[in-house]
Amino acid sequence: MARTLEFYYDYGSPYSYLADTQVEAIARRCGAELVRKPMLLGGVFKATGNQSPAALAEKSAWSGFDMPMWARHYGVPFQRNPFFPVNTLALMRGAAAAQIDGTFERYHPAMYKAMWVDGRNLNDIEEVAAVLTAAGLDAQKFGQRIQDQDVKDRLKAVTDEAVARGVFGAPTSFVDGRMFFGNDRLAFVELALKGELK
Amino acid sequence: MARTLEFYYDYGSPYSYLADTQVEAIARRCGAELVRKPMLLGGVFKATGNQSPAALAEKSAWSGFDMPMWARHYGVPFQRNPFFPVNTLALMRGAAAAQIDGTFERYHPAMYKAMWVDGRNLNDIEEVAAVLTAAGLDAQKFGQRIQDQDVKDRLKAVTDEAVARGVFGAPTSFVDGRMFFGNDRLAFVELALKGELK
Repeated sequence: MARTLEFYYDYGSPYSYLADTQVEAIARRCGAELVRKPMLLGGVFKATGNQSPAALAEKSAWSGFDMPMWARHYGVPFQRNPFFPVNTLALMRGAAAAQIDGTFERYHPAMYKAMWVDGRNLNDIEEVAAVLTAAGLDAQKFGQRIQDQDVKDRLKAVTDEAVARGVFGAPTSFVDGRMFFGNDRLAFVELALKGELK
Repeated sequence: MARTLEFYYDYGSPYSYLADTQVEAIARRCGAELVRKPMLLGGVFKATGNQSPAALAEKSAWSGFDMPMWARHYGVPFQRNPFFPVNTLALMRGAAAAQIDGTFERYHPAMYKAMWVDGRNLNDIEEVAAVLTAAGLDAQKFGQRIQDQDVKDRLKAVTDEAVARGVFGAPTSFVDGRMFFGNDRLAFVELALKGELK
């Protein structure tokens, strides 16, 4: 039976972006199913007492070198978002709505590109609308859907589920119920998907 | 000119132990010089406002799986120390003394084995003495040396140096002045030592 790679992420997390550039290829190489699970990282931090790694000045300074190093390693574009940290509640509700409404395949790459490649200010709902429109999505419908109860409930349910499974940060992957925290554990995720993890 | 791998660590850090099992082989493969720099991680945490990753219950629970996974990956023995966290001031002063006195090559592996393989209680100075004696070291001299000013000064100087260079946790490696935090960056350390890091 094919294995599943469950991938919890938030658009505000740069390491989630870096990992996201790899997970489709990893799943393909392993014949696995990829299930992206948009969660609210701020909600995870609140529930666990964790905080953003960027909260520590020295770690943030080091990440300024570490993140572009990973991007070069992967061969993907990246720039730090000048508006970081971004309140991602609307963006993550938008991901939940896109999964319900069948527009996720356009919504998802547009958000990551705007945040971690183009350095757009996604705290500004007008900017978000412009990004959506450019991606061929209905910005007005987005504004309505992120207020709908089914969308709010879905994001909350996935976030609660993540916390219940032990998630404390992003990105977090699960294979066969086993948890892998961080972009830097993807090599182990791939071994687990192949059934080769020691 | 051969490159240098500077490796800052503390015996109380399990990921420092895991990385330590690899750094000699990495340096050898790259024709590089390995310079181990014992520092007081508690001092680094105090200076930077960082705290042990084990302070977060969810991260600690995950590390309980992550650390043995790395040990199996490396093919090295490991068990979580039941007396963790350990106050490592005497142990790190002992490492500074061993470097000054020329006994580091016996002292260093004995400390790591006692802490992360044999699960000894190194908060207990009698246990430390027993470990030193079994390693053919002079436990009485250790007790005296860790009170000497040159030893105290050396540990403090290395710890201050680490903080001044941006270190916020352990293990931390430097190659050509570039910093790599964590056991999980050793693949990049190796690329840097080979001059192949993108």
